[in-house]
Amino acid sequence: MTKTAIEKLEALASADMKQIDRLIISALGSHTRYIPTIGKHILDAGGKRLRPMLTIAGAHLCGYRGKGHIGLGMAVEFMHTATLLHDDVVDESTLRRAKPTASKLWGNSASVLVGDFLLGQSFRKMVEIGSLEALEVLSRASAIIAEGEVDQLDAKGKLPWGKQNYLNIINAKTAELFAAACEVGAILAKTDKKKRKALSDYGRHLGMAFQLVDDALDYSGKKQALGKNIGDDFREGKITLPLLLAYEKADRQEKRFWKKAMNPDTQEEQDFAKAIALFEHHKVLDMVLAEAEQYGKKAQKALSIFEKSKWQQTLHELINFCITRHY
Amino acid sequence: MTKTAIEKLEALASADMKQIDRLIISALGSHTRYIPTIGKHILDAGGKRLRPMLTIAGAHLCGYRGKGHIGLGMAVEFMHTATLLHDDVVDESTLRRAKPTASKLWGNSASVLVGDFLLGQSFRKMVEIGSLEALEVLSRASAIIAEGEVDQLDAKGKLPWGKQNYLNIINAKTAELFAAACEVGAILAKTDKKKRKALSDYGRHLGMAFQLVDDALDYSGKKQALGKNIGDDFREGKITLPLLLAYEKADRQEKRFWKKAMNPDTQEEQDFAKAIALFEHHKVLDMVLAEAEQYGKKAQKALSIFEKSKWQQTLHELINFCITRHY
Repeated sequence: MTKTAIEKLEALASADMKQIDRLIISALGSHTRYIPTIGKHILDAGGKRLRPMLTIAGAHLCGYRGKGHIGLGMAVEFMHTATLLHDDVVDESTLRRAKPTASKLWGNSASVLVGDFLLGQSFRKMVEIGSLEALEVLSRASAIIAEGEVDQLDAKGKLPWGKQNYLNIINAKTAELFAAACEVGAILAKTDKKKRKALSDYGRHLGMAFQLVDDALDYSGKKQALGKNIGDDFREGKITLPLLLAYEKADRQEKRFWKKAMNPDTQEEQDFAKAIALFEHHKVLDMVLAEAEQYGKKAQKALSIFEKSKWQQTLHELINFCITRHY
Repeated sequence: MTKTAIEKLEALASADMKQIDRLIISALGSHTRYIPTIGKHILDAGGKRLRPMLTIAGAHLCGYRGKGHIGLGMAVEFMHTATLLHDDVVDESTLRRAKPTASKLWGNSASVLVGDFLLGQSFRKMVEIGSLEALEVLSRASAIIAEGEVDQLDAKGKLPWGKQNYLNIINAKTAELFAAACEVGAILAKTDKKKRKALSDYGRHLGMAFQLVDDALDYSGKKQALGKNIGDDFREGKITLPLLLAYEKADRQEKRFWKKAMNPDTQEEQDFAKAIALFEHHKVLDMVLAEAEQYGKKAQKALSIFEKSKWQQTLHELINFCITRHY
């Protein structure tokens, strides 16, 4: 069987990822009961660890020979994990990566505080690596991610709003960290500005495509493969591109339905099935995937300035993987 | 009327604090609705802004002539404010500084995310100032504060546990940031290790005294002066030194009472009045204040290596202020 792009990336990055894993275990060390337990719970749940692999790939692609990408990869993963823990509190999610969320198992308070601890450990590790440029990129990402989450919270249940607003939100909450994860690899390698910008752009476009597909999968994925509940976004009143497009295409009656269904106070059990039917009718999930493909092309273009190498080739294939994935 | 130590400190630091305020307003700038609103709500609520003033005082005490203490003071205040926002979610508090908490007004989700944003902005500012040493001290504090909060959460409602455990928790959740706020002032001034350590020790002991008094005030303060609900700790099952001491002194019947009262499932309305009566009987609040005074003496000793100056004198008087304060 041929390897998927993510498997190729995992194989290439495997020695580095093992070192990152060791740093993770060490940074979860704490006399408290919750920190190692919750940290292990969420980090062991079989996430793809895409973001630290982007840091590793970015560093190698630029010919980096040092060890800083291990620490920064761990910092990137902790920053991501902290946002997952806080997201689950905000979204009241019960399932993530096929396991009950930490907030469901240990309560919101523990999830908030362990998230804060991971963020603190993330910054400590960045400081240890000692690159102020990398710190600048990642601390900026940290604020922007939170701002994007606040935006998303504010927009919940409100219709109509524009596609650009949606794109801004996913750019902040997802693409920013993808971009930063790639860029810090280039920073470590002290590469030129052009390559640094290209890697950041690659990460950003990949992140946009990744999140667009994620938002489509919330309506079309299989719970088992996805590891979370289908329709979570819908039930929370989270307005993503499929919904915005369906609303744009809706006739007056359908618009009334969407407004009612996206209001948590008036949403009914059967509304999700109707939403899926309307999506199929208007072919909106295809449109979302087409949008993801556009970002995929931009990511490819950004990557094209790098010479062919196994890392370049794998990052190239990763784009398609992110778009066609089912989980 | 003679000025209190805090008023003297405010007067000395006032030009610098005005600049910090400008940085704060600028860093709260966001197109989102929640960030400026919640940020302003919590920062305007009339907190003493003791921590950034410690950074200012530490820097001046060591003869610092630059501008970095403005940015670090703002970073310290944002780090503190982020923990307040998250604490209110964790503790389910409804009142802080005489105003409804942000979590009560805008919900837990907004409080969590705006806290995350403030933490991100805090780190961005530290990076801008560019001192890796200061970053190390503050990022370490950030992780330790969260770990202390996790410890406190874990210990909720459980009796008996030792005084040392309590001291460890308040050292992490409060004294660590007091120490860091002072120490980064010394770092900016590139002072010698001995003075840096002395300032850090001063901050740590002051923070210990401050928190001990805070925990006593939760049982003895006036709601109006304190700006929060009396007995909040008790109702949440948060075990602080007054309670530990009362438990140590308790006979068998009283021990049964404490175990019942500190369990949120079995606590009754009238238990708080009984707790206060037992505190008076065993004189535990006096013992807590005596403990705070011990830390105050240590703080004085740490400060004694600095030459007399208006900053030294004010920091000296601040110790007594923190111990005898009623709010």
